[in-house]
This record gives sequence, C-alpha cells and structure tokens, in this order.
Amino acid sequence: MTSDTHDLGPSWLDEIPQRLAALDAAHLTRRRREARPEDGAWLRVDGRRMLAFCSNDYLGLSQHPALREAAIAGARRYGVGSGGSPMVSGHSEANAALERELAEFVGLERALYFYAGYATNASIVPALVGPGDALFSDALNHACLIDGARLSKATIHRFEHADLAQLDALMQASPARRKLVISDAVFSMDGDVADIPALIALCEQHDALLLLDDAHGFGVCGPQGRGSLAAVGRTGARASRRVVYMATLGKAAGVAGAFVAGSQVLVEWLLQKTRSYTFATAAPAMLAEGVRAALRVFRDEPARLAQLQRNIARFRAGMPAAIEGTPWTLLPSETAVQALVIGANDDALRVMQSLADAGLWVPAIRPPTVAEGSARLRIALSAAHAEDDIDALLRGLAQAARGPRDA
Amino acid sequence: MTSDTHDLGPSWLDEIPQRLAALDAAHLTRRRREARPEDGAWLRVDGRRMLAFCSNDYLGLSQHPALREAAIAGARRYGVGSGGSPMVSGHSEANAALERELAEFVGLERALYFYAGYATNASIVPALVGPGDALFSDALNHACLIDGARLSKATIHRFEHADLAQLDALMQASPARRKLVISDAVFSMDGDVADIPALIALCEQHDALLLLDDAHGFGVCGPQGRGSLAAVGRTGARASRRVVYMATLGKAAGVAGAFVAGSQVLVEWLLQKTRSYTFATAAPAMLAEGVRAALRVFRDEPARLAQLQRNIARFRAGMPAAIEGTPWTLLPSETAVQALVIGANDDALRVMQSLADAGLWVPAIRPPTVAEGSARLRIALSAAHAEDDIDALLRGLAQAARGPRDA
Repeated sequence: MTSDTHDLGPSWLDEIPQRLAALDAAHLTRRRREARPEDGAWLRVDGRRMLAFCSNDYLGLSQHPALREAAIAGARRYGVGSGGSPMVSGHSEANAALERELAEFVGLERALYFYAGYATNASIVPALVGPGDALFSDALNHACLIDGARLSKATIHRFEHADLAQLDALMQASPARRKLVISDAVFSMDGDVADIPALIALCEQHDALLLLDDAHGFGVCGPQGRGSLAAVGRTGARASRRVVYMATLGKAAGVAGAFVAGSQVLVEWLLQKTRSYTFATAAPAMLAEGVRAALRVFRDEPARLAQLQRNIARFRAGMPAAIEGTPWTLLPSETAVQALVIGANDDALRVMQSLADAGLWVPAIRPPTVAEGSARLRIALSAAHAEDDIDALLRGLAQAARGPRDA
Repeated sequence: MTSDTHDLGPSWLDEIPQRLAALDAAHLTRRRREARPEDGAWLRVDGRRMLAFCSNDYLGLSQHPALREAAIAGARRYGVGSGGSPMVSGHSEANAALERELAEFVGLERALYFYAGYATNASIVPALVGPGDALFSDALNHACLIDGARLSKATIHRFEHADLAQLDALMQASPARRKLVISDAVFSMDGDVADIPALIALCEQHDALLLLDDAHGFGVCGPQGRGSLAAVGRTGARASRRVVYMATLGKAAGVAGAFVAGSQVLVEWLLQKTRSYTFATAAPAMLAEGVRAALRVFRDEPARLAQLQRNIARFRAGMPAAIEGTPWTLLPSETAVQALVIGANDDALRVMQSLADAGLWVPAIRPPTVAEGSARLRIALSAAHAEDDIDALLRGLAQAARGPRDA
C-alpha cells in the first residue's frame, strides 16, 4: 500500500487509529467471532462448542430441514442470484408467490417482499413523508427507522419510550398535515410490546399513518406467530388502513430479508416510491422459497411456538432466585427477547465473560445500541432450547451474580 | 379493512390514489413482471419466453452449476439464515473465509462482507464523514450513495459527471478538514468508467478519502474481473490508503450482497462504525459459499469474461447501422452496460414495446433513475449471450428504428 507524501502536513487519516484506540479504552470495541451451528442451540464459536442465547432465530427455523430443502430446490430451479431489480427482471415467480402468502398470513391486503430489512425501514419512511411533514418516533426505535426518519427530512418528534400521552400531545401540537408515527412492535433490546390498539386509535384521531416494525414479533406473537397485529385482532376485516406493517424474515422466519404489508393502495405507493426497492437487486428466489417453507412450518408445527413460550416462562420463573442480591434488573417481557440490565459497560462484559467461561454465549449489548449506563445482557430464547438449556443459563447467571462478591 | 370515520374532514391518505394516477399519466408507473430463468440468457416472463438484455448477471454466474452447488452445500452445513448480526452470532466461518478471499482477489489489505449493497453505501458514507465535513459527489452516482451522503449530514458538493476540474476547484475552495469524494467506478445507467488514477491524485492533493462503488465493474473490469482498481494497477503494493473500495455481489458475481475493502485501519473503522453492519442480520453462509465459488470461476474460467468482451464489441460494431437515421444516441461504453438514449418517456416505452413484440426484453429506464428527457434503453450484455443473441438484438433495434417512420 503506497503512503502518499501528503504535503499539507499531517493527514486526518492519521487520526483514525487514535479514534479506534479511544473506542477500545471505553470498552466499546466490537470483536466478531466465527460461528457454525451444531445441534439444537449449540454453536461452534471460534472453534469452541457453546450454548447460544444470542440468536434471533427464535423458533430454530434456520436449521429446519423443510426450509433448507426448500431453499435448495429454489437454487436448483432459479439459480443463485436474481440478477436485477424487481422492477426489471429480478421479481421471480417465487418472490411473487411469497408476497401473496405473506399477505394472507399476516391478514393484510397486500405484501411487498424486500431483500434487506435495514434498507427497507430506512427507505419506506422517506417514501411516506417528506419535508414539511411530521414524524413521531418512539425513543427506543431501531437504528434503521431512525435512519429513515433522517432521510425523510420530515420534522422529527421523539417521544419517550411508550409514552402515548406525550405522543398524543405532540401530535395535537403539530401543525403538519401529514403525520407518521413509527414504532417497533416488539422492542429489540428490551423485549416489551407496543400498545398497538392505542397507537392506532391515536393515529385515527390525528389523521396519521402508523409504521409498525414487527421484526421481533413476526413468528413469535399472535396465533401461529402471525405477528403483533394479529395478536391484538387488527387484521383481516379489522385491519386499519392507517397501518404499514413491516417485519423481517431473518429472525423467527429463519431466513433473511423483510416485507411490508398493508392496504392495496399503500403497498402500491411503496412499490412505486421506495428507493431501496427500485434501486436494489431483488432477493434470490432460493431465499423466497425458504421463507415460503417457514410460513408452512408456522402453520403446521405449533409445538415450536409452544416450546418457546414454555422456555420463556421457565426462564422468568427462575430469574428472581438466580440474580438475588445483585443490582441487575430483568426487564418485563413476554417475548423471546429478555433483557438483563447490568449498567456499566465493563460490568456487562465481565458477566458475559463469566457466562462464556461456563460455555454459555450471551452477548453484552452496549451503547450506542442501548442508552449510556444501561449496558445489558440481551438473552434471546428460542424453541431450539431444551429445558436443560434454560436451567444451565440460570445456573450460569447465578454463578456470575455471586462471582463479583466472592472475588 | 376498517375505514375509520376520521372526523377532521378529508384525510391526506385519500390523496394517495390521486398521486398514483398522476404517476401513471406521466408514464412513470412501474409494473413488475414475474420471471424465471431458462437456458442461456432466456427468461420466462409472465409466462412468455423472452431473450433478456436486462440482467446485471454479466457473466451468467447466477446459473453456474458451481455456484449453485456451493450454495446448496452451504445450506446443508450452516442452515438457511444466519440468525443475527455479525457482531453477535451471525459471522459464520464461511463469511469469514469469504472476506479473506475477497481481499486477496481485489488486491487490498482487508475486506468486510455486507448482506446488502444499498444499505452498505447508505451507511458507510456516514461512518466516514459527518457534520462539518465535506462530501464531493459525481452527479450520476447511484441512489444509495446519495442516501449515504444525506445521512452523513456532511456538506454535499455535487460535481458535474466526470468533471474533475470542477471537483478540483470545489475541493480547493472547501475549508473542511475532512473530505470524502464518492463516485461510481462504472456508472450504472451510462456504462462509462471513472478516471480512477486522476481521482486518487486529487484526493492525495487535497487530503481526501475516495469511496469507489464498483458494482458494475467488479467481475467485469481488470484482469480476471478483479475490478476497476486492478484495471488501473492501483492494488497490492500500489494500492492507495485513501481508497475505500465497494462492490456488490449480485451482479457479475451472480449471488447477492456487497463488500467493502481497503486498508486494515479503514476497514476496521467501518467494521466498528457502520450502522447497517452492526444493526442488521449477517448474510446467510449459503450466499457466502456461492460468492466463494464465483471467485473461483472468475479465476478458472477466463473464457466467460472473453465472451462478454466479444459480445460488447459485436454489439457496438453493429449499432451505427442499426439505428441510422434516428436521433437516438448510444453512449460511449466498454462495459456490459450499454445505454441507448431515446429522450421522452413515452418514446422509450414505445421502443421497449417494439422489442418486446420481437421477444426481446430490454428495459426502458426513466426518471428519476435517469435525468428528465434522457429516458433510455439500458442494454445489459452478458457472457450468457451467444453471437446470435447479439444479432437478434441488433435486428430488433433496427426494426424499432424503422417502425415509427413506417407507421
């Protein structure tokens, strides 16, 4: 690599190593580990066998033979890549069939299948509102919704997490004619669920749209995992034309990608106007075929969701005893995401290390993913966990809870 | 679907159907077609067999048995989805191996593998520069680079396409200490190539970084398709530490996704700071295994790239006669992207329809993808085309060129 002799004095590029060192000093450096799935929820991690509580594969579907064989059949029929934008030649018959099945599954008129979840949210927000419009965003929304809000150039009103009285007041005070409320349905780092009926009612009252990101609820919430809207009965004949429903397909659905669903007219608008849909390569058909198999498993194997629910109940029942005497807080959650707030970054890393020493992989989540001073373990439960796995986690946490005092 | 009785008078939602109708009146509605690959460059499109000149699969690799079998083996070994962010458990051994092989292939120190190309550019720009910094962007850059520029909140200076004198003057006049130049390496809708050595020289002179998007050059330009930097000899020992190289993997590589490559320190910075990397699900290992197979094909089957180059030469040699007497312009291009500028939206759609009647699928590209008044056919050539296919296209264009005058 040539080191050009920059003749204007020191280059700003020379600061980058210092900025990396500062991250490290603040315990904020991320180090990736190389993973390979083994049986159940076990992974080979940097060569070592570990029991994982870190995957968003909440039903264990990424390893389900039906999904694997469907993806393989898709590769044989369609090849590997899609070759282009869905607006040109990338929209395969498989992708089209998936859209129809997704709409039916979540009980909305129409669905649009996107290759990538992050770009979906970052791009549908600016397709819905623009300069002069008003956006109302829950403080704990995912990064991609925040990017979408910024890109839209609408006026952004941030409301405290789940504070619907504040949301009501902000909407009341806004002179904007076009209003959009954006909210996670299940919050990704806390695991709690938004009050969707109340959000819809506020949107009706203030003539607003509601964009719900159900990344962590699709496949987990509602009958057969039909999602957070189905869980509150706001689908089918009771669907609201004000809701744009978004969910990802790389978590409980076990594959990758995302979709948006809603009324015929809203989805057609998003199809015509979403930059990351028009200007990006369509999802490979083999991924679409994998998701279609996931929808069949959601319907045909209710035991998976039941197992996840039993694991959640067992974990929460055991936690008060396991962490007794610590200042740690297990946040309220009935979903697969269980957040154990520790506080300081280095403390969270220490607990993570204690668990790792016991062969348990539970990630410490630090700022900027969560607020300063709320570093936590994000414990992701799955139908792939057996009861013994849950008990092993509880023992590991109890050990970590005692550790600092014994030291 | 409930139609809530919004009691504040007409809702802004009622305008959306009118806005869709206005798009239609301006010949700007996009209609998707359902596609399935058949042999060579033939597709089944809405049930009809057509010869396609619309895929970015420039080497025909999406249908290559080696890629398909590698993806299938990846699905068997790793399952379907990755389950999480690469910062947690999503970074598979396959993804890690691919990063090493990509870096070696493009001749740069290190590479970072991203699930999605659009989000990559939209997110690495704000990781590199922020408020108070200066961005210099070619007027024909892809939408995702523009989104990245907007998200960064840096001051954006747009320079006329390929006008490096203007770029020099803008950089000279900028008081910002941190400067970033962003440019497509091969422009996606024109097919021309940026003057990379001159861009690097300007960046050295003005202490700037250069982000090159080689989506349409990777696999096509340079020896063995090693990309646009390799084509001008700026890799290996002659690589510049000022270059962030980005390319996508769903075009000539035949799969999906993207990567970024550059110096060890820049790539580490992007790994730590790119939101769409940290906060998105990692690419499934089966896709990574497909790309690894594509790299082997790039190296081991030089006949594919040679076939593409022959097809480009044959097409360009035949074009002056085919479109003689029309006001159409074939833009200069030595790449797989050949732009035939027609002008008005409805004229471009008419030519597209004439070709479609002859069984040839060539997409008309209209605003906002290209500038107003420059609607065009974007003819994508591929190693999957036989000489006969090129001749059929030339005949179809000659027919379309005569058509309007005979009518």
